[in-house]
Amino acid sequence: MKAVGIICEYNPFHNGHVYHLEKVKELCPDHTIILVMSGNFLQRGEASLIQKWDKTKIALAYGVDLVVELPFPFATQSADYFAKGSIGLLKALHVDTLIFGSECGDIEKFITLANTQLYDEKYDEQVKNYLDQGLNYPTSLSKALFNITGITIDTPNDILGLSYVREIIETKANIQPICIKRTNDYHSKKLTGTITSASSIREALKKKQDIRAYVPKETLQYLKPYHTIENYYPFLKYKILTEMKDLDMYQSVDEGLGARMKKFIVMSKTYDELIENIKTKRYTYQKIGRMLTHILCNFSKDDADDLRKLKYIRVLGFSSKGQQYLNAYKKKIDLPIITTFKKMNPMLEMELRATCTYASILDEEDKQALIEAEYKQKPIMK
Amino acid sequence: MKAVGIICEYNPFHNGHVYHLEKVKELCPDHTIILVMSGNFLQRGEASLIQKWDKTKIALAYGVDLVVELPFPFATQSADYFAKGSIGLLKALHVDTLIFGSECGDIEKFITLANTQLYDEKYDEQVKNYLDQGLNYPTSLSKALFNITGITIDTPNDILGLSYVREIIETKANIQPICIKRTNDYHSKKLTGTITSASSIREALKKKQDIRAYVPKETLQYLKPYHTIENYYPFLKYKILTEMKDLDMYQSVDEGLGARMKKFIVMSKTYDELIENIKTKRYTYQKIGRMLTHILCNFSKDDADDLRKLKYIRVLGFSSKGQQYLNAYKKKIDLPIITTFKKMNPMLEMELRATCTYASILDEEDKQALIEAEYKQKPIMK
Repeated sequence: MKAVGIICEYNPFHNGHVYHLEKVKELCPDHTIILVMSGNFLQRGEASLIQKWDKTKIALAYGVDLVVELPFPFATQSADYFAKGSIGLLKALHVDTLIFGSECGDIEKFITLANTQLYDEKYDEQVKNYLDQGLNYPTSLSKALFNITGITIDTPNDILGLSYVREIIETKANIQPICIKRTNDYHSKKLTGTITSASSIREALKKKQDIRAYVPKETLQYLKPYHTIENYYPFLKYKILTEMKDLDMYQSVDEGLGARMKKFIVMSKTYDELIENIKTKRYTYQKIGRMLTHILCNFSKDDADDLRKLKYIRVLGFSSKGQQYLNAYKKKIDLPIITTFKKMNPMLEMELRATCTYASILDEEDKQALIEAEYKQKPIMK
Repeated sequence: MKAVGIICEYNPFHNGHVYHLEKVKELCPDHTIILVMSGNFLQRGEASLIQKWDKTKIALAYGVDLVVELPFPFATQSADYFAKGSIGLLKALHVDTLIFGSECGDIEKFITLANTQLYDEKYDEQVKNYLDQGLNYPTSLSKALFNITGITIDTPNDILGLSYVREIIETKANIQPICIKRTNDYHSKKLTGTITSASSIREALKKKQDIRAYVPKETLQYLKPYHTIENYYPFLKYKILTEMKDLDMYQSVDEGLGARMKKFIVMSKTYDELIENIKTKRYTYQKIGRMLTHILCNFSKDDADDLRKLKYIRVLGFSSKGQQYLNAYKKKIDLPIITTFKKMNPMLEMELRATCTYASILDEEDKQALIEAEYKQKPIMK
């Protein structure tokens, strides 16, 4: 049995993801499709519009065979860390191929860039120089790579893709990376709808626009009610305003930023306003979003230090093919495979804490159900 | 100039309080009336139905000359501590009389009981025995006092009154305590309405019953919107569920109770349900209410240790008579008198934190206004 890996947040699952899965099946028709999926909080510091069990159901419905959770300490961090966790899981699961979507679409370019990052001394120097000039990290990375290789890489998706490829090379994972070009060519004749990005769908939802043309029916079904990070602002504000300690104790909150947050929190009336008030040239919107998510979920620098390594593979759902794959590879997989929370450990505690935070905005019935699902729910079966 | 002190929570201000103030004016017609008032969180672990600036306006409208705030670390604690703070403030302000309402109505009885508590060795022994049998503190106190003196004291108001009298005796304060009997005789012909207790008014509000007969018009005016501790449950639940540390670190949370709270928090759908689930013979509803308020406001045992002593007299409002009194006594008053937060200190930080918590349930406009009032609002003048 062979397996192909994909890494997704599905925020939300849309026609582009359907196309991506179709492509994966086309390229690897006999492979088991393994999805590493972010849970309830995401890489840009967002809350997942759809809760993770429902995202799992959708993924299984569209052909994924095995859904494993990218733990919170990886899912909500910078591209490097996100890649470390997701490639680590795929490597442990013995996939031989990774297929990811990218704007660039040329895997050779990714490999060149990854090697530059890993082995060209000029790269680190240049990044440091740009950072010292007050530029943010993605811009510094992009400029340094362009100077050295002449290749432009600047979209969040491509930077994430580059992190995957670099992580594969660096950890000597036996995984072949393949990228599928994300363009308007995406319009497959198999699809009745059209394709647009997840962020444009999120924007449309914010404006209460009709998104039916861009997502499958399952997404619409599970989007009620939908979570956005904005809904959590009263809780974040309460937490920041009543926090006695320095906010810099929370993961990813750089020195001095905590004081800035405390300074602007009273006057900022929305999550978005708070980020806009704090933002500087050095800190991107997304980086600040991540900081706020770490504060909201009570994820400290100490926690992050303790949770630097993958401790388990948590299965959220599988098809019979996925289950067969797990059974076949069980003995070769170095990490323990877990389904429910029989024994707690700090990584699972963090996951539970994130889900408790995620559930805070729900009414009491739904809150209890979602929190209990975190430790009781068995993998979703298709 | 002479001054008489009263101690109130005004939760909410009702016809009985109007009567109390009438009585004070009758008994001390030339005195300046000084009110020590709890702020936004109260002794039973409740949120104040009406925010403190509005309570101040009402108090001034009904004849109080000077309103000073009982700081949070005293206002939300057991009767002993509550009395320590409030008598301490009145003593510092050189009042010569304290007038409080009580069910018992006989000041000699209070004096006998206070002396028993202070000087009769049997008292402490007996209280300890009852506590060891698993009884709660108010019951143990009441039983021990009855055994020794034959006097029954068991209502929360009388236990509070006893604490005042004991604190006066113990600190050798030059204050004469007077109690006014709280009975149906309260019905003064001067009042158009009728008198009922604050708790029955709170109950009526909960049931959306008409309370117009029991409160003056100002109370009705400021009761929109009104705060109850139940409104804060989503925040408390979020805090408890995401707290990494032991809840026993919070003030008044006895050993083991924190674990009980964590055990019952997911299944408890209301504040009330949580308390009922945690409650045992040893812990009264109110005592648990106080614990939860301390958790909600992030008030730790360390904070409480640091804030055992009065640090200032904070003026929330005054009439011209009150202002004259302050000017006349300024030099004799040992504590600094403060109005706005020019210099922060840990006691004021705690007060601000409590107000930030209190404001959490409001919409963003009102939240900002209430929080800013905490450090910008000058004393209300009548």
